[in-house]
Amino acid sequence: MSRTTVSYTDDRIYEFTPALEPADTAADGESLTVETVDSLEGAIQKDTDRLQSIPDEVNAATGPIAVAGATPGDVLRVDIEAIRVTEDRGRVVTAPAFGLQQDAADIEHPFTRMTPIDGDSVEFGDVSVPIQPVIGTIGVAPATDSYSTLVPHDHGGNLDTTDMTAGTTAYFPVFQDGAMLAMGDAKAAMADGEMCGTGVEIGTEIDVTLDVVSDPTVSLDRPLVETDSAWKTIASAETMEIAATLANRDLMALLEATHDWETTEAYLFSSLVGGLEISQVVDPLVTVRNAVPKEYLDDPFGAA
Amino acid sequence: MSRTTVSYTDDRIYEFTPALEPADTAADGESLTVETVDSLEGAIQKDTDRLQSIPDEVNAATGPIAVAGATPGDVLRVDIEAIRVTEDRGRVVTAPAFGLQQDAADIEHPFTRMTPIDGDSVEFGDVSVPIQPVIGTIGVAPATDSYSTLVPHDHGGNLDTTDMTAGTTAYFPVFQDGAMLAMGDAKAAMADGEMCGTGVEIGTEIDVTLDVVSDPTVSLDRPLVETDSAWKTIASAETMEIAATLANRDLMALLEATHDWETTEAYLFSSLVGGLEISQVVDPLVTVRNAVPKEYLDDPFGAA
Repeated sequence: MSRTTVSYTDDRIYEFTPALEPADTAADGESLTVETVDSLEGAIQKDTDRLQSIPDEVNAATGPIAVAGATPGDVLRVDIEAIRVTEDRGRVVTAPAFGLQQDAADIEHPFTRMTPIDGDSVEFGDVSVPIQPVIGTIGVAPATDSYSTLVPHDHGGNLDTTDMTAGTTAYFPVFQDGAMLAMGDAKAAMADGEMCGTGVEIGTEIDVTLDVVSDPTVSLDRPLVETDSAWKTIASAETMEIAATLANRDLMALLEATHDWETTEAYLFSSLVGGLEISQVVDPLVTVRNAVPKEYLDDPFGAA
Repeated sequence: MSRTTVSYTDDRIYEFTPALEPADTAADGESLTVETVDSLEGAIQKDTDRLQSIPDEVNAATGPIAVAGATPGDVLRVDIEAIRVTEDRGRVVTAPAFGLQQDAADIEHPFTRMTPIDGDSVEFGDVSVPIQPVIGTIGVAPATDSYSTLVPHDHGGNLDTTDMTAGTTAYFPVFQDGAMLAMGDAKAAMADGEMCGTGVEIGTEIDVTLDVVSDPTVSLDRPLVETDSAWKTIASAETMEIAATLANRDLMALLEATHDWETTEAYLFSSLVGGLEISQVVDPLVTVRNAVPKEYLDDPFGAA
């Protein structure tokens, strides 16, 4: 079977809806490549290009990709194998009424800084930053409500989570037949928090392998990511306090699935290792994760 | 000069006030040892000891230690050289109306789990967690208001920041003559977030060296910590969003001191590397830090 490429040029969405129609269908276990366009779709190409407002359609997500056999209650496993930047420059921007410091009078909104790619680095003026690509928006068809690709929620979406990078595995609840995976809004580099509202926005090619975990022994309400060293629950909500409460609650459920613990014991243990991390504080809902080192958790979706 | 030991048995405070009287005076550059008692002062010694409410006096901080020559506008540098646990067991607890999940009906408040120390590990039931000590409360005399040792603010206090550990250096603004350093509330292990409201609370001996940075070229409004790999600003506020905004603003000032950047450029750059981290979400004010890898920042208090 030749490797399928799904491209934003033909197949992209600006809204995760319960009734997404598939652009492509992947077999369970199939590896494919997803081409993504920068979140501003080429509108910002020089420092004098400024973003006067957030576009109505932004964060184009390539897809959706139906995965054969995925049915509601399953878990979709996405191995992120490689992310290659496909432009020779990215861009970091501010826009009015957007970003952590949007009310600061001494910060320019809008402002643009183009960031050339040089080998494995991004150039910010005379400072080099290593390329560490991040998939900003990645998710599946939601259960009942629809979400713009600018919004993160239980289906994923605009999670802006630095762990969505090559070498890690993301897990999503399957709410609709086929799951309907879509992704985009990639960055060549991004800080936890994404304070100014963007990272280095850039086009990419992403290699993934998709697997359906049927009838998982642990149910999943929200996204989860597995890195080399940790499992991390991911939750989005109106405030960081609420998102933290949800992510911590999800982690407690995973700890209870591994250990012979009451909920209170899982709660106490969650307060001792790993901990809360910030994904982003700038989207319409904010995103927090709760990490636990892998040695304390069995693979919730491993062989029985 | 023999090494001075300052102990909680003689010298402890429950409030950081502007007019603290020194328990001891250290020379600029002096190394000393600080003995701290567990945050609950021995009240919890077995699983059936429960914390019915947060005590009026809690988080005893050993000190205060005046540092000779420190005057307002200076910066106090605290090299944390070693933290030794001094009990054979710690404790993790919940208490009513306290902690991230305080409203959850399925979590017991109060609840206690004693955690024996075994070599380099803490035992939580049959799970071993490595000892990674944290100084929960550390700070100096504040500028104008007084703060219970349960509260974190610009003077430090109950920062509950995992980076306050052996091998790192903490910096505090000097608001009063002598700075008046005090510390306590140590943990043998703690997650970022301190979700249940405590880590493994335990008594410790802490070795520190204290230096005064006179007339710093960079002024400091809030605490700062230097780890092996990063500089991290630390801010406490009523919400995580506000704390994040302050910590990010403090980091921008440091970036501007190193690079020839406008504030807007420092803001964009802060969105590309390192990022926001959560210290704790359970104290009367919450605490967030903003990290930047060391290669992007000159030592703000290094030799001119």
